[in-house]
Amino acid sequence: MVSPDQDADWMRTALEQARLGLGVTSPNPPVGAVIVRDGLVLGLGYHHKAGEPHAERMALADARERGYGAFLSDSTIYVTLEPCSSFGRTPPCTDAIIEAGMKRVVYGASDPDIRHRGRADGILRAEGIEVASGVLEEECREMIRGFAMGVKEGRPWVIAKVAMTVDGRLTRKNERWLSGEESLRYAHQLRAECDAVLVGGETVRCDDPALTIRNPLRQPPAWKEQPWRVVLTREKDSLPEGSRVFTDEHADRTIVMENISSLSKNVLEVIYNQYNTSIVLLECGGSLLRRFLEEELVDELVCVHTPWIGGGPVQAFPGDAFLPHELVLMDRTWISCGEDMILRGKVRSRSGN
Amino acid sequence: MVSPDQDADWMRTALEQARLGLGVTSPNPPVGAVIVRDGLVLGLGYHHKAGEPHAERMALADARERGYGAFLSDSTIYVTLEPCSSFGRTPPCTDAIIEAGMKRVVYGASDPDIRHRGRADGILRAEGIEVASGVLEEECREMIRGFAMGVKEGRPWVIAKVAMTVDGRLTRKNERWLSGEESLRYAHQLRAECDAVLVGGETVRCDDPALTIRNPLRQPPAWKEQPWRVVLTREKDSLPEGSRVFTDEHADRTIVMENISSLSKNVLEVIYNQYNTSIVLLECGGSLLRRFLEEELVDELVCVHTPWIGGGPVQAFPGDAFLPHELVLMDRTWISCGEDMILRGKVRSRSGN
Repeated sequence: MVSPDQDADWMRTALEQARLGLGVTSPNPPVGAVIVRDGLVLGLGYHHKAGEPHAERMALADARERGYGAFLSDSTIYVTLEPCSSFGRTPPCTDAIIEAGMKRVVYGASDPDIRHRGRADGILRAEGIEVASGVLEEECREMIRGFAMGVKEGRPWVIAKVAMTVDGRLTRKNERWLSGEESLRYAHQLRAECDAVLVGGETVRCDDPALTIRNPLRQPPAWKEQPWRVVLTREKDSLPEGSRVFTDEHADRTIVMENISSLSKNVLEVIYNQYNTSIVLLECGGSLLRRFLEEELVDELVCVHTPWIGGGPVQAFPGDAFLPHELVLMDRTWISCGEDMILRGKVRSRSGN
Repeated sequence: MVSPDQDADWMRTALEQARLGLGVTSPNPPVGAVIVRDGLVLGLGYHHKAGEPHAERMALADARERGYGAFLSDSTIYVTLEPCSSFGRTPPCTDAIIEAGMKRVVYGASDPDIRHRGRADGILRAEGIEVASGVLEEECREMIRGFAMGVKEGRPWVIAKVAMTVDGRLTRKNERWLSGEESLRYAHQLRAECDAVLVGGETVRCDDPALTIRNPLRQPPAWKEQPWRVVLTREKDSLPEGSRVFTDEHADRTIVMENISSLSKNVLEVIYNQYNTSIVLLECGGSLLRRFLEEELVDELVCVHTPWIGGGPVQAFPGDAFLPHELVLMDRTWISCGEDMILRGKVRSRSGN
């Protein structure tokens, strides 16, 4: 018998594997797996990128490579997401698990696609394989929140990031940067975990940002591409031709969308469908952020609180009216980051969700 | 030999005593003392209120009351503030220490009044008493920051408190309160540690607050009076006669100052000199807070961060310009308080202080 605690411990190992794929698997979700027998790890694996083997097959390959092929029967596989049971770009993982003769399958999150949910469960059980689900479910669902949002809403998960002074301003007198070194690395880590960074034309005109990943807390895998740089603007011609996003070596990763006046939801649907973006990072100024908040299109908020006071005219959260629906920040975490404090949480409508 | 660690431990006990006097000793500082011999506590004491015995004499009396009078010789007294050496409303504590035949005096903070600083030290040493100073100095200075500000600047220490939404607003749609239950108790604890609460006329007109201490985290001593309620207004007649601050049972604790147009520093000097206020709590709206920040008259900031987003038109920190001097929040602590997170720190001018 394996205790629930042990199951959770191994699932944590699988989650660590999944994390390695964060930001590189879209449109697929990041998934991790670990194969265990008699308390020993036979193989570890995670999904590297779309078109390549899923986490389960990676873990199986790892076990065989280590010479543990003969031990796979009677083993348990822990996988953060319900195994796939249909042919996509790769054959179904249920087949691989059955072929390997595994005894037990433990998964965390159910498939967010209701057409597939529970299917693997049934197929595996029919083969006499023991199945347990919902182990560290919350953490496992968190890992695939971008993918799940796409499946359910046809748009990416949206994280808004804002760094501000104690008095909620975006600027400091005579200083270019608000945040400290550590917060900047945290911000670059966020970019590394996203598929696209979205800004308004005004940000490009005023700050000329590169919007690339530089010195993140954790080096992304070698195959991580720079995030798409999405610029929303009223008129493309209003953006300086010499802007970094047009002239640097990643110029082909820049998308300009001239539909600034249309609904933000449309913008998100377009970049979801055309550019495989599961998670988008909003690094826009206050007025665009306000628009996304008004349309309830911010799913997660990251506020970098810096120690400065008296930051001048530019508000992080402008607007003289109440939002149409009051929002609330849930599941908050406060992360001490050098001189700054980072508040991170999920944005929910007050009426519940 | 007493190790520095032991000294710090006993000083912590003395600080706990001092804390009992926080908010009730003005114009005197809150001071605590503990008398120790051979690792045993002979007596504890703190200064209760102006005109009554100092902490040292309270601890001596406590020791004698417990029947330890004969053990006072060769004992050590730990006191959070350098003992007084001159006659005030009570005789000097140095006399009491010498009379008791104590062997060692350990104090935390030096007397902030340079006319007295180090005097006790010299007097005690001349009597052959061992003296150590600066033990937990920072914590001990913190305890008397209101008193020290009065001695040095002739004005009270100013704590500004503000509760706000994630987007820095003071209001919620259709809800009277921003903060949660625990934060309200924290706010009432702040009032219990202050001598006066200061608001603008607009706050009285709009909110009709009582500004009294209700259900604080720690019950203040029985002799704690309600804080002075200072209302700054352009014109006294603009305040509704039926306002709580004029009509409740503490109406005699309300001070209206009509000099809203004059410097905030003058206001503070007046309430310091006329009403013995060592610590003042600003609970005013944004525009008055802005004025105090502009004049660099906020010494400490307490921001209650609530989880709401989209709080409407009223900004916690209004103003479209940079402050004349950039301020920075130092020695920050973040306190988790129910659903809210409280940021507390010292306000310093960026150029140093």
